[in-house]
Amino acid sequence: MSDEVVDSNPYSRLMALQRMGIVHDYERIRSMTVAVVGMGGVGSVAAEMLTRCGLGRLLMYDYDKVELANMNRLFFRPEQAGMTKTDAAAQTLAGINPDVALESFTSNITTLEGFDAFKASLCDSEGAPRVDLVLSCVDNYEARMTINQVCLELGQAWMESGVSEDAVSGHIQVIIPGVTACFACVPPLVVASGIDERTLKREGVCAASLPTTMGIVAGLLVQNALKHLLCFGQVTRYLGYSSLKDFFPTMDIRPNPGCANTLCGRRQTEAAAREASPEARAAAAAAAAAAEAAAAAEAEAPVHDDNSWGIEVVADQAEPSGSGGESNIGARARGKPGAPPEGLQYSMPAGVTAEELRAQAVEDSESNIEDLMSQLDALNKP
Amino acid sequence: MSDEVVDSNPYSRLMALQRMGIVHDYERIRSMTVAVVGMGGVGSVAAEMLTRCGLGRLLMYDYDKVELANMNRLFFRPEQAGMTKTDAAAQTLAGINPDVALESFTSNITTLEGFDAFKASLCDSEGAPRVDLVLSCVDNYEARMTINQVCLELGQAWMESGVSEDAVSGHIQVIIPGVTACFACVPPLVVASGIDERTLKREGVCAASLPTTMGIVAGLLVQNALKHLLCFGQVTRYLGYSSLKDFFPTMDIRPNPGCANTLCGRRQTEAAAREASPEARAAAAAAAAAAEAAAAAEAEAPVHDDNSWGIEVVADQAEPSGSGGESNIGARARGKPGAPPEGLQYSMPAGVTAEELRAQAVEDSESNIEDLMSQLDALNKP
Repeated sequence: MSDEVVDSNPYSRLMALQRMGIVHDYERIRSMTVAVVGMGGVGSVAAEMLTRCGLGRLLMYDYDKVELANMNRLFFRPEQAGMTKTDAAAQTLAGINPDVALESFTSNITTLEGFDAFKASLCDSEGAPRVDLVLSCVDNYEARMTINQVCLELGQAWMESGVSEDAVSGHIQVIIPGVTACFACVPPLVVASGIDERTLKREGVCAASLPTTMGIVAGLLVQNALKHLLCFGQVTRYLGYSSLKDFFPTMDIRPNPGCANTLCGRRQTEAAAREASPEARAAAAAAAAAAEAAAAAEAEAPVHDDNSWGIEVVADQAEPSGSGGESNIGARARGKPGAPPEGLQYSMPAGVTAEELRAQAVEDSESNIEDLMSQLDALNKP
Repeated sequence: MSDEVVDSNPYSRLMALQRMGIVHDYERIRSMTVAVVGMGGVGSVAAEMLTRCGLGRLLMYDYDKVELANMNRLFFRPEQAGMTKTDAAAQTLAGINPDVALESFTSNITTLEGFDAFKASLCDSEGAPRVDLVLSCVDNYEARMTINQVCLELGQAWMESGVSEDAVSGHIQVIIPGVTACFACVPPLVVASGIDERTLKREGVCAASLPTTMGIVAGLLVQNALKHLLCFGQVTRYLGYSSLKDFFPTMDIRPNPGCANTLCGRRQTEAAAREASPEARAAAAAAAAAAEAAAAAEAEAPVHDDNSWGIEVVADQAEPSGSGGESNIGARARGKPGAPPEGLQYSMPAGVTAEELRAQAVEDSESNIEDLMSQLDALNKP
């Protein structure tokens, strides 16, 4: 990766980050592997950003085909309609930056075989994780729970993203097994749009989307990924975006000791043990001393997120809501989460699984079952 | 613009915004014209977003050519290296959405002829403005001052954008002649990066850039443009973005009664007269009553920015800095602006023109003139 300042060098403006003291070692990105699951309006743009940043290896997952109805989001072109999203993306990305090793997986990860193939694809031939980060850019609850399970099994860090069905808000969330809440610890949080949700549900399953909201969420996701991978700035654990008011709540979400996924509990115990071990204490003390020295030398020294194991909830810009003043989301037993901070809301009823939700939907006598199932699918497709 | 929910309809997901009550009349976008000045890392992505949104007419301005060194940002492809940015953009955008009427202007707007041609291009054959909004995506102070002057002369609303030289922060700003501060009212505000600026200046003129930051700023800019054009949500007058801490300060900037640009003063007088006229008062009262009724009916009724002529400074998420507690930026005479709100800083010394800055630079005896000139150019290239 040349840092020569000439018009013909595609990396000159990236290597400048190093010269300017933003990133200590930019070139490390060449040795890194990122998996992007879901190549829709967020995933495809995230993949393009990583490709243009000179990532070493990019794994792409989707089983869908490009449609003309996707043209209101960035990346895919009309002449790619009918191609699989993974084929179309590989075609475009290879043309943009042939230095990036691309791997495509055209299968549904939520099926039984898909689950196994997905997990295997994240590991080397000896079964050890080979991926530095997984980015979830899927549009449904089942796929997110699949990624959560695979990443818990592998101890794999991942970042979740979502865009609301009304196209005007979105979020990103960092999930590090045992260290942060996993996706099953608490009901998924989304930014409150203030739009009457009954309007959405009544109108059926065609979600709205905008290239702006999806491009912004992809940008925030990859920016957070770059900060995590290249150790600069502060990695934000949860960042919401509400476009109607330009509101960007941030917060941490603690792991839930009573998480329904027992593997999450085991990862929490391991993380606590790592934190309590003499080596970890010594390392933390050394890191703290180094951070202090760096802070003294420079007001805004890059912060390495991996060093901070402090599992606590901080509702940064989002004030805890008045009702109860409960802000330590995830600290309570599953099924009884507190009120989310102001401006955020749960995307599903608290403590209810997708299966229970389906069962409830069937019990509702006001509408027929098919309507309710499609409402539920719409609800699960942020 | 069909709202049919089929895979072959590129507008189905946009028309869904209307069905969901986010936008009252989405199809109005087909009758609208937007000018994007500067087709770099922000402008090209903004143009693509507008094209995919189904804009009626897009005017594009740039005099530069595509280089391989631009490949670390979205949009342009390696095989377009050597083409003018306007030609390359027109080629790509026409392929994406042939419904959008594209006009390219390949000239430098800061030259004398360029200025006249730019102004003429924004008007119809009778000299009346034909553009709904101008988006500034340029990378230097002179071009911004040119756009400011032309828009003051035409009474044309525009939005300014910028990305910092260290690639980790950016901003957008709405400028409505007489109603908000113009670009000459107060020194341009940027988000404080906390990085030692001397590092940047010492290293010369190769600015860093990232596809993430530029994509996010383009997304925020076009999102704000859509809210302004299609009258939904709240149009944010100034929105900053600091990626290192995910900090998004917002504020209003009042027009400066002592603005060095006398035309700005005249526009301020006109705006005040409009506000004070019986018709305007009646319209404002009617709008207020309607807004109240809408608010009662729906908690989050779309807000039409054009109805709010209240010129006042509100430092939303950005608290006024402690020193002086001065928050009404622009209310004082030019040359003596107060301290900017916390997290923001002036991109140039307060109340100093570019010419004065150049003169000062020449007087500085520690470096040679050429070095200082390139430092200055670097400073002016956010």
